[in-house]
Amino acid sequence: MALIVQKYGGTSVGSIERIQNVARRIAKFKQQGNDVVVVVSAMSGETNRLLALAEAIQTQPNPRELDVVLSTGEQVTIGLLCMALQEIGVPAKSYTGWQIPISTDKVHAKARIEDVNDAKLKQDLKEGKVIVVAGFQGVDENGDITTLGRGGSDTSAVALAAKLKADECQIYTDVDGVYTTDPRVVPEAKRLNKITFEEMLELASLGSKVLQIRSVEFAGKYHVRLRVLSSLKDECEGTLITFEEDENMEHVVVSGIAFDKNQARVNVKGVPDRPGIAYNILGSIADANIEVDMIIQNVGENDTTDFSFTVPRNDYQNALKVLNAEQDKIHAKTIDGDDTVVKVSVVGLGMRSHSGVASQIFKTLADENINIQMISTSEIKVSVLIDEKYLELATRALHEVFQLDK
Amino acid sequence: MALIVQKYGGTSVGSIERIQNVARRIAKFKQQGNDVVVVVSAMSGETNRLLALAEAIQTQPNPRELDVVLSTGEQVTIGLLCMALQEIGVPAKSYTGWQIPISTDKVHAKARIEDVNDAKLKQDLKEGKVIVVAGFQGVDENGDITTLGRGGSDTSAVALAAKLKADECQIYTDVDGVYTTDPRVVPEAKRLNKITFEEMLELASLGSKVLQIRSVEFAGKYHVRLRVLSSLKDECEGTLITFEEDENMEHVVVSGIAFDKNQARVNVKGVPDRPGIAYNILGSIADANIEVDMIIQNVGENDTTDFSFTVPRNDYQNALKVLNAEQDKIHAKTIDGDDTVVKVSVVGLGMRSHSGVASQIFKTLADENINIQMISTSEIKVSVLIDEKYLELATRALHEVFQLDK
Repeated sequence: MALIVQKYGGTSVGSIERIQNVARRIAKFKQQGNDVVVVVSAMSGETNRLLALAEAIQTQPNPRELDVVLSTGEQVTIGLLCMALQEIGVPAKSYTGWQIPISTDKVHAKARIEDVNDAKLKQDLKEGKVIVVAGFQGVDENGDITTLGRGGSDTSAVALAAKLKADECQIYTDVDGVYTTDPRVVPEAKRLNKITFEEMLELASLGSKVLQIRSVEFAGKYHVRLRVLSSLKDECEGTLITFEEDENMEHVVVSGIAFDKNQARVNVKGVPDRPGIAYNILGSIADANIEVDMIIQNVGENDTTDFSFTVPRNDYQNALKVLNAEQDKIHAKTIDGDDTVVKVSVVGLGMRSHSGVASQIFKTLADENINIQMISTSEIKVSVLIDEKYLELATRALHEVFQLDK
Repeated sequence: MALIVQKYGGTSVGSIERIQNVARRIAKFKQQGNDVVVVVSAMSGETNRLLALAEAIQTQPNPRELDVVLSTGEQVTIGLLCMALQEIGVPAKSYTGWQIPISTDKVHAKARIEDVNDAKLKQDLKEGKVIVVAGFQGVDENGDITTLGRGGSDTSAVALAAKLKADECQIYTDVDGVYTTDPRVVPEAKRLNKITFEEMLELASLGSKVLQIRSVEFAGKYHVRLRVLSSLKDECEGTLITFEEDENMEHVVVSGIAFDKNQARVNVKGVPDRPGIAYNILGSIADANIEVDMIIQNVGENDTTDFSFTVPRNDYQNALKVLNAEQDKIHAKTIDGDDTVVKVSVVGLGMRSHSGVASQIFKTLADENINIQMISTSEIKVSVLIDEKYLELATRALHEVFQLDK
């Protein structure tokens, strides 16, 4: 008997019929003798509907109140799914984030999970109940409702799996696994049966939409066995995200190409080159809860330095505003940027032992006359920032050169 | 400076525009130097939409899970109203039932408020904030979400007013006050400027839709000054529900005619006449959380007795089921009933000192050839159960005979 945590996204629970389908799928796992904890998102379209209501009132809705409004989406789904389970004879009980509670920090719309209380859940599992938990939400120490941001239900599922020491955490989506790249861009893209946690972490951080980055981080930290699979295809085993040491895998050099359109570059030029200046610039960005991704610093003219960094595209205007407000501390000559850039990344555990991957990337892009604006590397990935108009061209060329279609 | 609790129903917050209107109204009260606590319902149509989703899955949705689903309606409204207030410069903070908390018993869908914790609210009021509370909901001792039943937001408002010792509790609806009877039935019906608490209690218990009965009971118990008024008409003072000793009122004999279509009669005939039999019958009905209204007991044939009582119409089938299940205790000859009956009630504080009101009612109905099936009286009201087809005729005749159009 295994304990399985399953997460169903908005599309999987997007209608009464689909909720009933999910209930039947859960019942099957239960009948096989498993304990099942389910995490659900809001019915597809619901979060956007609620957001539209809020934005009709405030262009930038108050974050605390927006979380109050948005968190209702998942709350509706948990109730309905429990009814659907009970209707087919499966005992089930729903939990909102605060009922468990899933404790988070106080950052509305982007809260991080700090703890999960499993006392009630363990009791329910002992009584044979399926537990249905509202994803995407938690509660802070003031008793305020928080949300984890888009895709946060994945993180809720992994956090529950970690706390409950689940045997597997299954993320059901509308795709059937992790691909070598986005099949809409490269039709030859192939589904991977297995991928290591480290590779997945890079892919997620690079904008692959299959899993939210924080859920992969969590999974890595607590050694949660993750599987991505489709709620529509019954026969497909999806993609298992494994720990290198756990599994026998024949490592290829490169396992996937990811890209991220949610990028904007900010340039801060002609900053006096003195200690603490990076902190002045990036600290103010961090204080505004904007996540910085790639960072480069160049020597500029006359003892000045030039900074460039990337931020999520919807934080771009806000980032410029924050920096302009700090000009008396920064003393930059110019603050500008570009929000028509994308990041393309080549990921593979094999890069550790195979030199020359980076230079092959640069050569491939040069052959296609694509200018590289920024470069960032880690042990197992190389990312480049390029003009967004070259996204498809670059991805196809790299997918081919690393023979991912084979 | 006064502390005012205001409650806005679903119609008053039924669209973004109406929520903005409510925000402006609240701002006006705030600018006049008042502290304001607001209780809101779900946007009109929302509770029915959620109920339809639930009923598409379970014909009789699980009560615990249904409360989880339904309570989201008010939660959306509190967030949106706070945004609307903040947008026009009024600091505001929202609270769900569990955040306050509003503690209730465990009876899902019909929970009763046991306590209101005012610690956080008092702090917020001190800080000048408008508090916006989700009506209709609370939390039980297990941390489960409960709802108070339809119209429960009125009760939430009165409970908050009682706990906070508010100067006035204003119930905004789509009618501009309490009328001598339903103007849709009798066009000559008149709005009452004042009505005593006792009369209002009778009217509410008799099916007048203006206020929920429990809210009036609460108001009476804790001496909350209640006012019913329209959120659409600015100039109208509505109807103040007063305590007899507080105000100078020229009492008329009869102040209003109420009717209640939500009635069904249950007949339990030929029951062995022995002690405890009433308990066997009515106790099992109470255990099923069905409220009994009128009760009569007659001597039947051969040492048996006949019971008749009325229940809410949507509990009628359930009541019959419950009684049939208890037949081995009850030993009734027949268990049947009729769900096409209505209760018409004549209410007035002046009835205390004016004899002959009851006989005038009976004469008026007899003159119209309307058969009276059950009678129930209190100090200040006379109710009769009649065939529902005579509802309009009876109400018009009684309204005229007591000169309520004058």
